Amino acid sequence: MKNNIGTNISLTVFGESHGPQIGAVLDGLPAGFAVDEDRIAADMEKRRAKGRISTQRHEADEVHIVSGYFNGYTTGTALTILINNSNTRSKDYEKTKNRLRPGHADYTAFEKYHGFQDYRGGGHFSGRLTACLVAAGSICRQILEQKGVFIGSHMEQLYSIHDDVFSDDLETLKEQIDLMNHREFAVLNTEVGRQMKEKIEAVASQGDSLGGILETAVIGLPTGIGEPMFDSVESVLSHLLFSVPAVKGVSFGLGFGFAKVKGSQGNDDFHADPYGHITTMTNHNAGINGGITNGMPIVIHTVIKPTASIYQPQPSVDYQTRENVTLQIEGRHDPCIVHRARVVVDSVVAFGLLDLWMSKKATEDWVCA
Amino acid sequence: MKNNIGTNISLTVFGESHGPQIGAVLDGLPAGFAVDEDRIAADMEKRRAKGRISTQRHEADEVHIVSGYFNGYTTGTALTILINNSNTRSKDYEKTKNRLRPGHADYTAFEKYHGFQDYRGGGHFSGRLTACLVAAGSICRQILEQKGVFIGSHMEQLYSIHDDVFSDDLETLKEQIDLMNHREFAVLNTEVGRQMKEKIEAVASQGDSLGGILETAVIGLPTGIGEPMFDSVESVLSHLLFSVPAVKGVSFGLGFGFAKVKGSQGNDDFHADPYGHITTMTNHNAGINGGITNGMPIVIHTVIKPTASIYQPQPSVDYQTRENVTLQIEGRHDPCIVHRARVVVDSVVAFGLLDLWMSKKATEDWVCA
Amino acid sequence: MKNNIGTNISLTVFGESHGPQIGAVLDGLPAGFAVDEDRIAADMEKRRAKGRISTQRHEADEVHIVSGYFNGYTTGTALTILINNSNTRSKDYEKTKNRLRPGHADYTAFEKYHGFQDYRGGGHFSGRLTACLVAAGSICRQILEQKGVFIGSHMEQLYSIHDDVFSDDLETLKEQIDLMNHREFAVLNTEVGRQMKEKIEAVASQGDSLGGILETAVIGLPTGIGEPMFDSVESVLSHLLFSVPAVKGVSFGLGFGFAKVKGSQGNDDFHADPYGHITTMTNHNAGINGGITNGMPIVIHTVIKPTASIYQPQPSVDYQTRENVTLQIEGRHDPCIVHRARVVVDSVVAFGLLDLWMSKKATEDWVCA
Amino acid sequence: MKNNIGTNISLTVFGESHGPQIGAVLDGLPAGFAVDEDRIAADMEKRRAKGRISTQRHEADEVHIVSGYFNGYTTGTALTILINNSNTRSKDYEKTKNRLRPGHADYTAFEKYHGFQDYRGGGHFSGRLTACLVAAGSICRQILEQKGVFIGSHMEQLYSIHDDVFSDDLETLKEQIDLMNHREFAVLNTEVGRQMKEKIEAVASQGDSLGGILETAVIGLPTGIGEPMFDSVESVLSHLLFSVPAVKGVSFGLGFGFAKVKGSQGNDDFHADPYGHITTMTNHNAGINGGITNGMPIVIHTVIKPTASIYQPQPSVDYQTRENVTLQIEGRHDPCIVHRARVVVDSVVAFGLLDLWMSKKATEDWVCA
Repeated sequence: MKNNIGTNISLTVFGESHGPQIGAVLDGLPAGFAVDEDRIAADMEKRRAKGRISTQRHEADEVHIVSGYFNGYTTGTALTILINNSNTRSKDYEKTKNRLRPGHADYTAFEKYHGFQDYRGGGHFSGRLTACLVAAGSICRQILEQKGVFIGSHMEQLYSIHDDVFSDDLETLKEQIDLMNHREFAVLNTEVGRQMKEKIEAVASQGDSLGGILETAVIGLPTGIGEPMFDSVESVLSHLLFSVPAVKGVSFGLGFGFAKVKGSQGNDDFHADPYGHITTMTNHNAGINGGITNGMPIVIHTVIKPTASIYQPQPSVDYQTRENVTLQIEGRHDPCIVHRARVVVDSVVAFGLLDLWMSKKATEDWVCA
Repeated sequence: MKNNIGTNISLTVFGESHGPQIGAVLDGLPAGFAVDEDRIAADMEKRRAKGRISTQRHEADEVHIVSGYFNGYTTGTALTILINNSNTRSKDYEKTKNRLRPGHADYTAFEKYHGFQDYRGGGHFSGRLTACLVAAGSICRQILEQKGVFIGSHMEQLYSIHDDVFSDDLETLKEQIDLMNHREFAVLNTEVGRQMKEKIEAVASQGDSLGGILETAVIGLPTGIGEPMFDSVESVLSHLLFSVPAVKGVSFGLGFGFAKVKGSQGNDDFHADPYGHITTMTNHNAGINGGITNGMPIVIHTVIKPTASIYQPQPSVDYQTRENVTLQIEGRHDPCIVHRARVVVDSVVAFGLLDLWMSKKATEDWVCA
Repeated sequence: MKNNIGTNISLTVFGESHGPQIGAVLDGLPAGFAVDEDRIAADMEKRRAKGRISTQRHEADEVHIVSGYFNGYTTGTALTILINNSNTRSKDYEKTKNRLRPGHADYTAFEKYHGFQDYRGGGHFSGRLTACLVAAGSICRQILEQKGVFIGSHMEQLYSIHDDVFSDDLETLKEQIDLMNHREFAVLNTEVGRQMKEKIEAVASQGDSLGGILETAVIGLPTGIGEPMFDSVESVLSHLLFSVPAVKGVSFGLGFGFAKVKGSQGNDDFHADPYGHITTMTNHNAGINGGITNGMPIVIHTVIKPTASIYQPQPSVDYQTRENVTLQIEGRHDPCIVHRARVVVDSVVAFGLLDLWMSKKATEDWVCA
Repeated sequence: MKNNIGTNISLTVFGESHGPQIGAVLDGLPAGFAVDEDRIAADMEKRRAKGRISTQRHEADEVHIVSGYFNGYTTGTALTILINNSNTRSKDYEKTKNRLRPGHADYTAFEKYHGFQDYRGGGHFSGRLTACLVAAGSICRQILEQKGVFIGSHMEQLYSIHDDVFSDDLETLKEQIDLMNHREFAVLNTEVGRQMKEKIEAVASQGDSLGGILETAVIGLPTGIGEPMFDSVESVLSHLLFSVPAVKGVSFGLGFGFAKVKGSQGNDDFHADPYGHITTMTNHNAGINGGITNGMPIVIHTVIKPTASIYQPQPSVDYQTRENVTLQIEGRHDPCIVHRARVVVDSVVAFGLLDLWMSKKATEDWVCA
């Protein structure tokens, strides 16, 4: 459904880039969870624009919880988050409101909403709405973390620059996730990070933009989460990930690399340790078999396309006059959003996994011995 | 929800590999649509196992419509499809029922269903259930086709063998789609097809298996289909595609290639023809901007991993005794399912797009002048 | 959604009165539940037509479980029920297929499905489909019963004849529920039952029909089931009850009697016993406060209208010619369905409460101390 | 789902009685609808407390639309309504927060939310949240009205005082609906209204409260709206109506009166006028056959129980100490909410019917000739 998703917990997102407020309703949370508001702020900070590698629209992104939260604890009823839009410059958009930005949703918004869409700053299609996903997702993450589940992402690739990859060793991976969640620019290799920033700045100075690939890992999930057919872990997570603007590809484990291996190479052999604990010796399937978690880390690759709004002149069309025109974008835009998107990815993954875990709980412990 | 999906039309899938019947309920269809049963049979035939490149379990896959269908037309009420399982050899599975097949859902089924799962032939996790998706999807496709929407897939890659790619030219693409829907082994280049079949047979003789990448194209969709946030076209289609067993990656347009281009290269510039009809000059975004169709072809890449069930001995674990064992699989399995999966992919794409189109219709023509 | 309902468990119903089969898919059941097939048969028997007080269409109503069930236990995947239609006489309906039965769905089916509906025996609108509700509901009831939850209904009113009412005393009520579940004609007072049967037979001989009111009680539910706003216990149960053909009113506890009392009379005062167990001293609110169970019995009244299909000549319209005509119904119809409907009511109530209970479980035990 | 409902349009409600704001997200609206904000204010005014017959908590109930609305028109994206809580006196509730109000949700909230619920003013269970239903419902009503659909309710019964009933004559009924929508105290017979107000004031002076029955009529709906099984018009509307606090019974047409008539009396005979337009000669079935509209007025009865919060001392229990106590409520409460509830009833009915109509549109015009 349009702006609402979820089964046992549901998330409703609303707002426009230049409206008074954006927000989210997170419903179905357990009662009595002590939300760490500082942690929400820390997660918001990871997404917040700053420096020359992001948009010059700087927002405080302060999160106001106006319902479902009482004396520091979730009440169990619908929890509502409001975030103010303060730093808007709507006039940047008036002049070009009929000129369709290539790669952006301007044209499709016209076709779907017949000209009634709020065009200012991309309106409802703005990446600004991902702030709501982060705030809501932060609460989901906190719940998962107290259960021993940790999520983290890094920028595996930016243009032609490649970061190190997440480790196959669980202990090392745990440290890497922790590191990513404390590092402002999420790369494993800081020298690579320096190169990536330079590359973004260089491309920004050309009025152009860049995309990249995020690698996300989830550790600590129990086995048996996910459903066999339509709510496979992959289905639920990809649904959420493709809801994030600019995502154009999602894969799990070996992903598209599965095309190039044989079954004997792609299968993950099982092993039991002396205590009878079963793991797989490799993790090509990213902790998911038949759509259901097997206890190994979930590993996801998500590609973020280069920001559509670039400052170079682009061939376009005036929607009203149907004339071919040259578009010169104004407004303030990101030369790259991959580094800001990583916490958005973590957030929607957290929401999806918490919801699937709840569905598992719903069907358990029904059979009396 | 587990085995049910959809908003205005919904699809419920049920059954197990060795149960008496598998089936699907397709609800919310328009009344009065003349279903072409021969076409369903033709679509089923594309998925049906035959020859040495598929499993030796040969099923008639005859489709019985037992409700929602009267005198050759849909009634508008829930349409139910039943398909018999006739060629089952359950004893192949008894001996090894506690030995977990690497890459398959045996272990996760144990963990989720606590040993109560039907293990015969993979039970509910069998690729056999995709027969239901094809039968239901065929009806959706037929509805779309009379509206001028056509869907087709080919095997773009199998191991290291690459087919030609779909054309950027709409007329040519239409012909290619038509060709794929009439060709038994879906490749554009028949010489490549011959090589692929040889490769599958060679790998089969080693007791191993192969995967590949399907390229799928959809033409003729109107603009304005899809929702802005959670029901983006990419979200809905990927949700369905990752419900198909063995799918481990889905991308749209340039997909993961977006990481390697700049915005100026990845954006699709707009152009208006003399009649005011707007198109894009390239189609890197696969006909989707902001989650909504822009009228250009939708182009999807789906990776299918190599069949998990291979005949080579594999390290495994006995779930009950927790002993490390060597698994020697019996039963009849496909050395490759990519060629059979292509019509499954077409089918779920058809379902998803029809449902999204219906959602669009639901909100239109409400405002009186 | 049309023919599908539920959150953690879902129920999909399909079929037509004179099609080959009707059925249901019950998805989301816990794995490992030992279904008692004899009990399903016993529940089906309560709904089955027999004697002069029901239709002369006698069906075996044998229930075939074709998926989600293995070696006597639920597998946890979609459980599918098929029931054959064997005793059909479709020609009874051909002659009058355009003559709209007053009170029935003939006209609205024409308007909704544009003449493509299966008109034979009421098609999808036939009370025959409630057989699916009973079969699926019987499994839900069995799960609830092992948890100590019992459901029963009796015919509180038939025309001007009134049965005794359910007791306020919990022990007595439990015995009454048990009695109703073993009595073929569900009345507390057997002398009243004799009068009711006579009345039905008398009215049947006039070619007319009767309705009535069912009183349903549920005992043993834990507190805290139900949701605060849209999924209140009353909302979920009424949604299901109004899905049963011929239901035209649903109330809880005092119901419409609440209009005639003051707050001081309608409120249920609280009382704690020496062990600190809290109950209410009366139960006007039917065990539900704020949409959520308080541990007292749920008491529901459901009105079933007189069967629409009667044998008296009725003014009607020919849908095709638009002529005013006199309709003389053929076919075989029930002079009363209240006695058959009671187990249908029990069944949908069981489904609704099990689903709500599952939703409660999904959000519990998330907060680590 | 808890605080979210709807298929093609969805409504999410959030907030607590004494939180900073309550609100609603109405998603899936058609784009380009010119919302009449004065009309929203007028509908809010009908629900607003004033005079001695309502609570002394007087709120401005100003509606702020913060998303999905641009330049006076709906944009088609999620429309969000915020309403401030300004006149709160939370200290009234602290003293008695563990003393369970009979008839209210205090006990069930404790049991469900384990003490983490916001107890102030009833928190999420407060009738205050119905302000959100009215604001959202007003927009739905406006859309329906431009399509010729009108909804109105009157207080048919208050304690032992009975209003006139809605007319069977369509023209007269239309005038009555219009009158009710302009009358502050919704009764057809103003002398009866005077008596009702006196009765409320008299009961209020005793520290007691009253309930009543609302009769609601909907005219102008096309035929063919509603679904055959689970989304019957009655199912969808009752689900919404039972979501309104204090509703304990809902019936359609003759309702519980159907138990006392024969089929020959309860059926509505069909008649075609000279133009071939089909109507029924009576309307016992309230414009709904088989769950689907037949073009006749929908007529609903909804019982509202007496306000649970009364000022008389009541036997209760302290939840923490488990002691039996006498509860003396403070705070400000309504002696009757029936007169305020009528516009809430109209509002949820409008939402439900608009959503069902949208579902009908989704499946129409698919079959090409």
